[in-house]
Amino acid sequence: MTAPVIHAWAAPACGAPLEAWAFEPGPLGPCEVEIAVEHCGICHSDLSVLHDDWGNAVFPCVPGHEVVGRVVSGGSLVNDLAPGQRVAVGWTAGSCDRCRCCIGGDQHLCSQAQPTIVGHHGGFAERVRADRTWVFPLPDGLDPAAAAPLLCGGITVFSPLLEYASPAMRVGVVGIGGLGHMALKFAAAFGCEVTAFTSTPAKAEEAGAFGASRVVSSRDAGAMRAIAGSLDLVIYTLNVSIDWAALMATLAPRGRLHIVGAVLDPVPLNLMPMLVQAQQVSASPTGSPAAIATMLDFAARHRIAPQVERFPMSRANEALEHLAAGRARYRVVLDADFPASQ
Amino acid sequence: MTAPVIHAWAAPACGAPLEAWAFEPGPLGPCEVEIAVEHCGICHSDLSVLHDDWGNAVFPCVPGHEVVGRVVSGGSLVNDLAPGQRVAVGWTAGSCDRCRCCIGGDQHLCSQAQPTIVGHHGGFAERVRADRTWVFPLPDGLDPAAAAPLLCGGITVFSPLLEYASPAMRVGVVGIGGLGHMALKFAAAFGCEVTAFTSTPAKAEEAGAFGASRVVSSRDAGAMRAIAGSLDLVIYTLNVSIDWAALMATLAPRGRLHIVGAVLDPVPLNLMPMLVQAQQVSASPTGSPAAIATMLDFAARHRIAPQVERFPMSRANEALEHLAAGRARYRVVLDADFPASQ
Repeated sequence: MTAPVIHAWAAPACGAPLEAWAFEPGPLGPCEVEIAVEHCGICHSDLSVLHDDWGNAVFPCVPGHEVVGRVVSGGSLVNDLAPGQRVAVGWTAGSCDRCRCCIGGDQHLCSQAQPTIVGHHGGFAERVRADRTWVFPLPDGLDPAAAAPLLCGGITVFSPLLEYASPAMRVGVVGIGGLGHMALKFAAAFGCEVTAFTSTPAKAEEAGAFGASRVVSSRDAGAMRAIAGSLDLVIYTLNVSIDWAALMATLAPRGRLHIVGAVLDPVPLNLMPMLVQAQQVSASPTGSPAAIATMLDFAARHRIAPQVERFPMSRANEALEHLAAGRARYRVVLDADFPASQ
Repeated sequence: MTAPVIHAWAAPACGAPLEAWAFEPGPLGPCEVEIAVEHCGICHSDLSVLHDDWGNAVFPCVPGHEVVGRVVSGGSLVNDLAPGQRVAVGWTAGSCDRCRCCIGGDQHLCSQAQPTIVGHHGGFAERVRADRTWVFPLPDGLDPAAAAPLLCGGITVFSPLLEYASPAMRVGVVGIGGLGHMALKFAAAFGCEVTAFTSTPAKAEEAGAFGASRVVSSRDAGAMRAIAGSLDLVIYTLNVSIDWAALMATLAPRGRLHIVGAVLDPVPLNLMPMLVQAQQVSASPTGSPAAIATMLDFAARHRIAPQVERFPMSRANEALEHLAAGRARYRVVLDADFPASQ
């Protein structure tokens, strides 16, 4: 049975450190699933919500939206998930399931979608809830802790590859961090020729191990010019701007720049080169439920997992600082260590 | 036989009016076709080259790249076009036919492509030349004079419709001018629901006749908000900026803004709304030879022709001024009236 109170780590206000907190979740909805959290990744968007960078945060805020755990119970309409089954939850915990986006399989674009950590309590907790549409059985063969970051960071880069990449393509990945290193692994497993862009020399060797066949410094104008016109698809994972014109110049005719980083500054498009070469710029958030399920199968089959550093959840503040300082190599996962859950 | 001298209207220098001129075209290349010009449309890009807006003009410049005429002769490798046959030529007069773009059917993206009016003499002339790849037999059923503007303005808007539109889509067209009015006709013939954006009230009624089911003033913030989130594809034909954020807000989830206007200012993309709705911005120039041939067949089958105003070619300067003043309704076509060709 579901316990009445859930212990969690919550920020009481914008920018405040996390504190031990407890809340009563209320009755479980008919489509809801309650999950005992085992592991929860930390994503840059947890920091963005904790600092209310997007102006939509609700406090107290329980962050965490890369959850792996075990089903505790399901509502009356949940008949395909068994208690104890290992499942995962990502950025989205619910969608209307009735709008054109939802019935078309684009539930992640539903205007009523419920983010896991905005006006809803996330995975830095004993238990988390999500609608059945957004609860994914974890395939055998995936390490549960290492798989957690696939649920947001992973799908964010897998989704555009699934949509736009073919094995014969030359793919670039900008920013070799939490998202970027997963993008390198996925793109290499897709069979693409993979170019990593980084301005951190120390990451160059690791980028090769992740699957890059070439590493280019995005701050080296000569190196950027040397690969002009060569890339079919560039996945941009940074949330800050670089020299957009130099980056666009690396695209081949009909090439695509796809942005998944939450870039808040306007991106100035220099249209004429883009027009004469029929190029495009696209962007996307996370991915659809079907894409997430496909990614989990693909990751299990290709033995793809992010490279993670693990912290006990009771040291969540320290882990958040580690990520915020840019020291994560390459993704941070918290292991739940609430007294009651041990 | 080909006469040694071709009479033409040429600008001797940047910004100068056209003057009567004559040049010796030299021997015809093995893949070249020489065409006796009957009609030639005027495009905004003729003005751009005459004023060297893009920094690549060559003078003396014979403008004109929407040509309809009759084959005079072909080079030794031209065996499928007969003298006297009615054909058409557009923005491009040649391509390398060997690069990846060319062998892939994207000859319009060839980096060696030869524009008809840059370093090559265009259609304001008795005769014009183009490589066989870029010479299109004109289908029966198209009026030769009215068909001329299809060759640049027409294909520029038909190409993105061919690539991205489906009959079930809601399509917007921004700028109801030479390109835009053709876009309305094509999109309506595709079976799309068509919204015309214009800030010229007098064009609203005509937009309906061209196929728009709705006309919205792009300067009316309330009207723009009223259609927020409703369009799957917006074709932007202006070469100046409008309120890009307001325009992007009219896109549905997964919607696309496609720019075919030669916008020289940077286009500032407000990324976050685009990202959360998985939208895209693309651009393209003219179209491929296969797309041009497809468009001519489609236009003949659907009886689609631009609405044109005709001038004798000897009044080309007056016609250019008419276009530059924004008075063209909606496309200007010159009828060749060289003494020798009459």
